[in-house]
Amino acid sequence: MFDPVEKLKEYVRHPSVSADPAYAEGMRGARDWVAALLTSIGFSVEVVPTALHPVIVAKRGGDPSWPHVIIYGHYDVQPPDPLELWETKPFDPVIRNGRMYGRGTADNKGPLMAHLTAVGRLLERDPKLPLRITFVIEGEEEIGSQNFKSFLGQHRAKLEGADFIFLSDTALPNREQMVITVGLRGLVCFEVELTNARSDLHSGLHGGVLLNPIQALAELCASLHTPDGRVNIAGFYDDVVNVEPWERAQLAALGLKEKDYADFLGIERFHVPTGYTPFEAIRFLPTLEFNGFGGGYQGEGSKTVIPSKARVKISCRLVSNQEPEKMKRIIFQAVRDRVPSGLKLKLTEQHEATPYVVVPPDRPNTPKDQSPVLARAFRATDAAVTEVWGRAPLYLREGGSVGLIADLKKELGLDAIMMGLFLPEDNLHAPNESFDLSIMEMGSRASEKILERVARG
Amino acid sequence: MFDPVEKLKEYVRHPSVSADPAYAEGMRGARDWVAALLTSIGFSVEVVPTALHPVIVAKRGGDPSWPHVIIYGHYDVQPPDPLELWETKPFDPVIRNGRMYGRGTADNKGPLMAHLTAVGRLLERDPKLPLRITFVIEGEEEIGSQNFKSFLGQHRAKLEGADFIFLSDTALPNREQMVITVGLRGLVCFEVELTNARSDLHSGLHGGVLLNPIQALAELCASLHTPDGRVNIAGFYDDVVNVEPWERAQLAALGLKEKDYADFLGIERFHVPTGYTPFEAIRFLPTLEFNGFGGGYQGEGSKTVIPSKARVKISCRLVSNQEPEKMKRIIFQAVRDRVPSGLKLKLTEQHEATPYVVVPPDRPNTPKDQSPVLARAFRATDAAVTEVWGRAPLYLREGGSVGLIADLKKELGLDAIMMGLFLPEDNLHAPNESFDLSIMEMGSRASEKILERVARG
Repeated sequence: MFDPVEKLKEYVRHPSVSADPAYAEGMRGARDWVAALLTSIGFSVEVVPTALHPVIVAKRGGDPSWPHVIIYGHYDVQPPDPLELWETKPFDPVIRNGRMYGRGTADNKGPLMAHLTAVGRLLERDPKLPLRITFVIEGEEEIGSQNFKSFLGQHRAKLEGADFIFLSDTALPNREQMVITVGLRGLVCFEVELTNARSDLHSGLHGGVLLNPIQALAELCASLHTPDGRVNIAGFYDDVVNVEPWERAQLAALGLKEKDYADFLGIERFHVPTGYTPFEAIRFLPTLEFNGFGGGYQGEGSKTVIPSKARVKISCRLVSNQEPEKMKRIIFQAVRDRVPSGLKLKLTEQHEATPYVVVPPDRPNTPKDQSPVLARAFRATDAAVTEVWGRAPLYLREGGSVGLIADLKKELGLDAIMMGLFLPEDNLHAPNESFDLSIMEMGSRASEKILERVARG
Repeated sequence: MFDPVEKLKEYVRHPSVSADPAYAEGMRGARDWVAALLTSIGFSVEVVPTALHPVIVAKRGGDPSWPHVIIYGHYDVQPPDPLELWETKPFDPVIRNGRMYGRGTADNKGPLMAHLTAVGRLLERDPKLPLRITFVIEGEEEIGSQNFKSFLGQHRAKLEGADFIFLSDTALPNREQMVITVGLRGLVCFEVELTNARSDLHSGLHGGVLLNPIQALAELCASLHTPDGRVNIAGFYDDVVNVEPWERAQLAALGLKEKDYADFLGIERFHVPTGYTPFEAIRFLPTLEFNGFGGGYQGEGSKTVIPSKARVKISCRLVSNQEPEKMKRIIFQAVRDRVPSGLKLKLTEQHEATPYVVVPPDRPNTPKDQSPVLARAFRATDAAVTEVWGRAPLYLREGGSVGLIADLKKELGLDAIMMGLFLPEDNLHAPNESFDLSIMEMGSRASEKILERVARG
């Protein structure tokens, strides 16, 4: 069996920056390296081309009656800039105080290495393990998984019939507490543009006779929330499921402090609908946020202009069971209804909506149609994490949106067990990224136990 | 006596663009040319340096008991760009269909030539005319009269004791109707910046727990008007004087059509406080306009960010008797009062406020303390215009703000008779600027009659 720490060093040395064509050699190197490692532990590896960076698909087949798990990861990393802020070279990994420093150590090479190690050890120890495993390792996660959806569409035969996805590309709150992410918010993004006069006007010669589009848009935006922070659109909350008591209890067990969070954000006070803590609001409530507002003159000093147009970019995070298409209809209609008479509206959807994701863990309220293998995997995860960490994992929804998890669910009908392995201090997407090697070892032991229990019950 | 049309050609040939140092030679040429012309008609000319372009001060003195008029003009012109849109060269004047084409013909070389011609003819015909005349011709009008205020401050002794200002740098609605501008709006410009979190935040990880500064600023902006278009700030209208019936009547006599104006602006409907036409609102009501709003991401596509800050630029036009300092206190306090708890406000005044200007024409309601010479000048203007145009002038306030008129009033206590001479079709500040030579002749005859009546009663 290989030494996971030495192997991770080799892997990190391949500068696999997907965003920059200058790193094509590093992308190829990382891909070949992963393929070779998978071959060495008995997988049959296929490198599937896409419009940009290929996806690695590696299979360990077996009897069709065996459970089938897909392990997801990505071999690409963020660009290392700004280079001058790195204390050691980003692609020359160095270990200090139990951490390996280097670009991609935490996102996602180290966490993937935990699973590769787990699978290697497990198959070495138990070569007849009744488990089908397919690794799907993409090369475009850091640039939005642009081609992943079409990959799933074109190659679904390679993946069909699997029981669940297993991955580690989410966070732990600290070294002591494992969190399994069981939900992600959905996302709808759009732009609203209002136009009045045919061109910008002089505010002295014409000010006071027409509705300024900045004013009209500010009034429209102001109408979209109530004073307590709820979204002021009829039907917006209709499909939001009640938060289960167990979810609130899980979150409470995490022990987060509002003061710490406010200090981290640098805000004096939270602005959260009545009945929710900020930690609950992020996870359990939908939002309507203004991401950008632009109109008129924004340079130095003043310019006495009445602009012809004003624009606002809006994103809505959706929770279960808010279906994106229905929500878009409701939201867009509310915007249309509030355009003042005489102004021209241009409403542009900015990209395809991302659905919310909810993975029901094995709880009393879990739907009856949950796959027995998924249910077993959740029980296995609970037991394995409890053994390795010394305490049970928490099951929490998160506020972000991850398109590829939604895509996997939509295209293959598969739920995911998201076992967080990186820590807040790991500096993802920043200089001096690092990964805690003891967490890698714990993650690898937990993964090994989980896979074994899924196979052997 | 000189030929005004030939003289105007000579004058226009000097490319006196104040904004561009490359035209320094043209500025000097125009200045010397004006100085020489003034000398030739008997004035003692002084070229007074400023931090940038000198001011020409030319005097015809006399007995201190004689009335004293200051005639204002400017020798600088707008840049001629875009050159490719000119049908003839901007500094090579050409006459077609009674119009002279060239940069500066209408703004302000032609109108100034009308007064130079009037004075030249008058003094030739009546060398003993009991009238003191001072021409003040600046070189920075097109770049905001940057140094004019300090010129007035430093050289007030040259101008003190004058009775009124006479100038032609405003517009006529058409060839048939003279308009004397008797009021300009004041101006206060400021920027409001709201900050919440210490940096931009990810809207998935943190969306829904804090007040987005775009939302806060949109709500603040939305609070500043009532639905009928009035400014929603207590005390905002307290000092606005009632529009006199004669002012409404003058405006009605102008015969402007709302449909034409809406078509010109390219709007479907006006948005004007109840009880006012759009033409009245521009002239008689104060405003609070949003000139620019910026916050968050404004590029292509979407970025799911919650910005740390949002900013809005606001300008208020003020009418009589709204004193800028008092209005600033009222407006700034209203802004401060509406900042949501927890957000940080930065309120920046953008430049010194411009006071409103009202010149009381000689009407039944004219204040009793109006200077008898100014009253006589208004009567003279009315009579002279009626003789030359065949109908009486209209006396109208305008919506714009002109700092130098306010400065002249503030520094020297002088009112101005603003006799408009350029037409909407003259293309000021645009390619193919031109000036109607018959208007120049009519203006010159009117000016001659006005000055004569001021002197001789």
